[in-house]
Amino acid sequence: MAKKAIGIDKYLDFDDWYHDALREADLVDIRYPVKGMIIWKPYGLKALRLTQRILMDLLEKTGHLEAYFPALIPESVFARERDFLEGFGGESFVVEGTGTKKFNERFYLRPTSETVMYYMWNLWIKGRRDLPLKMYQVVNVFRYETKMTHPILRVREIMGFIEAHTAHATPEEAEAQIKEAIGIYEEFFDRLQLPYYIVKTPPWDTFAGAEYNYDFITVMPDGKGLELGSVINLGQRFAKAFDIKYMDTDGQFKYIYQTCYGVSERVLGAVIGIHGDEKGLFFPPEIAPIQVVVVPIAKPEDVQVLEYARRVKEILEKTGIRVFIDDDLEKSPGWKYYYWEMKGVPVRIEVGPREVGEKTVTIARRDGAPRIVVKLDELIPVVNEVFREVNTALRERALEHLKKLSIIATSCTPLENLMGLIIAPWDGSREEAEMLEKTFNKGVLGEITESPMPLPPPSNYTTCSGRKAEKWALLGVTY
Amino acid sequence: MAKKAIGIDKYLDFDDWYHDALREADLVDIRYPVKGMIIWKPYGLKALRLTQRILMDLLEKTGHLEAYFPALIPESVFARERDFLEGFGGESFVVEGTGTKKFNERFYLRPTSETVMYYMWNLWIKGRRDLPLKMYQVVNVFRYETKMTHPILRVREIMGFIEAHTAHATPEEAEAQIKEAIGIYEEFFDRLQLPYYIVKTPPWDTFAGAEYNYDFITVMPDGKGLELGSVINLGQRFAKAFDIKYMDTDGQFKYIYQTCYGVSERVLGAVIGIHGDEKGLFFPPEIAPIQVVVVPIAKPEDVQVLEYARRVKEILEKTGIRVFIDDDLEKSPGWKYYYWEMKGVPVRIEVGPREVGEKTVTIARRDGAPRIVVKLDELIPVVNEVFREVNTALRERALEHLKKLSIIATSCTPLENLMGLIIAPWDGSREEAEMLEKTFNKGVLGEITESPMPLPPPSNYTTCSGRKAEKWALLGVTY
Repeated sequence: MAKKAIGIDKYLDFDDWYHDALREADLVDIRYPVKGMIIWKPYGLKALRLTQRILMDLLEKTGHLEAYFPALIPESVFARERDFLEGFGGESFVVEGTGTKKFNERFYLRPTSETVMYYMWNLWIKGRRDLPLKMYQVVNVFRYETKMTHPILRVREIMGFIEAHTAHATPEEAEAQIKEAIGIYEEFFDRLQLPYYIVKTPPWDTFAGAEYNYDFITVMPDGKGLELGSVINLGQRFAKAFDIKYMDTDGQFKYIYQTCYGVSERVLGAVIGIHGDEKGLFFPPEIAPIQVVVVPIAKPEDVQVLEYARRVKEILEKTGIRVFIDDDLEKSPGWKYYYWEMKGVPVRIEVGPREVGEKTVTIARRDGAPRIVVKLDELIPVVNEVFREVNTALRERALEHLKKLSIIATSCTPLENLMGLIIAPWDGSREEAEMLEKTFNKGVLGEITESPMPLPPPSNYTTCSGRKAEKWALLGVTY
Repeated sequence: MAKKAIGIDKYLDFDDWYHDALREADLVDIRYPVKGMIIWKPYGLKALRLTQRILMDLLEKTGHLEAYFPALIPESVFARERDFLEGFGGESFVVEGTGTKKFNERFYLRPTSETVMYYMWNLWIKGRRDLPLKMYQVVNVFRYETKMTHPILRVREIMGFIEAHTAHATPEEAEAQIKEAIGIYEEFFDRLQLPYYIVKTPPWDTFAGAEYNYDFITVMPDGKGLELGSVINLGQRFAKAFDIKYMDTDGQFKYIYQTCYGVSERVLGAVIGIHGDEKGLFFPPEIAPIQVVVVPIAKPEDVQVLEYARRVKEILEKTGIRVFIDDDLEKSPGWKYYYWEMKGVPVRIEVGPREVGEKTVTIARRDGAPRIVVKLDELIPVVNEVFREVNTALRERALEHLKKLSIIATSCTPLENLMGLIIAPWDGSREEAEMLEKTFNKGVLGEITESPMPLPPPSNYTTCSGRKAEKWALLGVTY
């Protein structure tokens, strides 16, 4: 049998832990012979679908409509916005023909959908009542990454990219949309119990073709930063490139203002890395493919126990809880506990002869909290309460994790063997950013606009060259 | 304003009717500058998602697990099964590099996923307990069609192809799986109220790399046949090409037996074409993005009517019915009736001062059945009953449609100006098929194994060259 995830300390050897966890839990298969492209196995895909559903519902609730735009983009459309072409042209896959025939034009396999979408918006947006336009699509996007690839975290076929795009009449409305988007992502990541910093990226490092963007950044157990999502103010650059104008109430034709924001399967990679432990995976209940595993503790002749276990399963299933009963009598209860903990199932229910007699069940939490015994007729409210408690435990663990891997460095001096993100005083200038990067050997990811733990006022500190600090910079090496 | 779908007889000018219906109802946008690739607008995509959900649930219920396999397939993998390569190589898009760099190997953009999937199954299938393996994925597939493209019906980026693949230890198990798949598709198309023939394709026209396949074929208003879905027995050819063996209980390594079956967005094209009429679209309730539109018949000052209409909406919404209230007071009720009928909403509820006074609503059906007045406290059961009645009406209309466009031609003589499918006596031989094709100027689609209306025994008739017939051949020109 292959080496087990269980037993490896993810903070000591994250790469080994991560690959073992993915394989043992059967989430993905990385043996496909194209670098950066992986197979999603049913258990992993189920978790991803549940994760996507949360965000899609949040987008729908706030008036974003799902649409679909083609995967192939003619070069003439792709090349319209010059910065975008420079930013994405070299890392986009290109189709030049079929197996037997060459085309006259080249087609880009979408690395992201601005160009294909805005080409159509030029046709759709005519007047003020067409605005705001709020759309999203869930698609795979393709990027020929030259950085090292990692399953789920950095891939060449990005799986289920949920990209939202909006158009507005005024810059104020676009700004308000940016705030709404940040609020949506906050709720999304909060429900996954993921802690994050929000940074505003420096102007020299914004998305190709954008005015500015906010990034949600978390940290993985190896200390590397991970961008969970990005909220981008596109201003009018694409509007000008694609000539998207509306007739305002004053009869004038005006360019629209645009925003876009996207999240990929990477967020599930963060869930795996941040919530997992030496036992394996640990899914928050909302996205766990199996939320409750029922383990009958019975000999083959204990028909009553098996029947009772099935009844428990049915009671749970009826309220929509995702439950699996492991009634394989060839395996010991201990083996099953270990196995389902490794698979990340947040709650286990044990039933044996005692539980049958007392009409109770015993509930165990994946985080190791003391077991509780519950009357069968209180099962549903208690299980839901246990889900909430598990979420609280996960949130606290994850915040500890983030704190452990975040260092506030107020004096501009190198730190030895530093693993994690650095928070340093900054004035926002490029020269000071370069000094910080040189000192700490990490990149400036942006100015922190939201931190999961309180930070002192930056004005208490000075920058590398002794200027008064105005902001906190977040530095890190990222995936 | 653009020309309206309403008023065109789809049987006289289907192409015009179809394009008008798609545009007026805002289902898709066909103005994207890549031939055969279209935009799915929110209303159309919603109908497609609801349609897909039915089939996905049927697949899940029968033990198929959702997985995901990459879109890009290395040429070395793609080329393993020779017939498959010949069948799909020329119509597959090929990636040879990025915008700025050439790769050493070519990658095929999946036209269907046999090769990428079975490459992995070689790694996954070891013993008898790994079988049967039943998987599906929902992906876009890409085919450089040389036939004329039609939005939704024949495209180059096929949208949401639901492809299922299975592996078995014995040919009998594979045969049983074919039967299960046919049963799944029957239920799927029946729930969409689509009538169909099932044909077994002739050996000279099977799917590339297959033993035989069953096709579900319906007919569009222009008389052209449309393949709704295909159920394929792959035998062992891919198993041999990809060396997929399992160790049997006798200790021997044996090749697996495989089946696959797929359905695309085309089924929604069939719904549009077959159920639509001179008023526009007509969605079966199960896939209607809006199942009920509530139209208040009120002057702006009739606050009571508007409040009552909103209450009706809430009552419906609470039970999960997809409902929209059209309370735009600038438009007349007549305009709204016309508009929502064009959009295919199957049920309309009208409320005016009389309904408020009597605590009733008036229910109108999209198919024009007499309106009924219902007490508010009976609303839900009545609406559900109305949905069933609408389905029955649609089924009957669709069957009439199919009969109208199907001709049993028992004497092998040309038919003038024939629009539709031809059912002709056949002995199954290639030479007789060629005689039929020459006589009727249509292709033999296969032997009919299931017909929506009873057919006489073929043995009552003779073939073109006077042999005794054993089967009914289905002939048609297809999309």
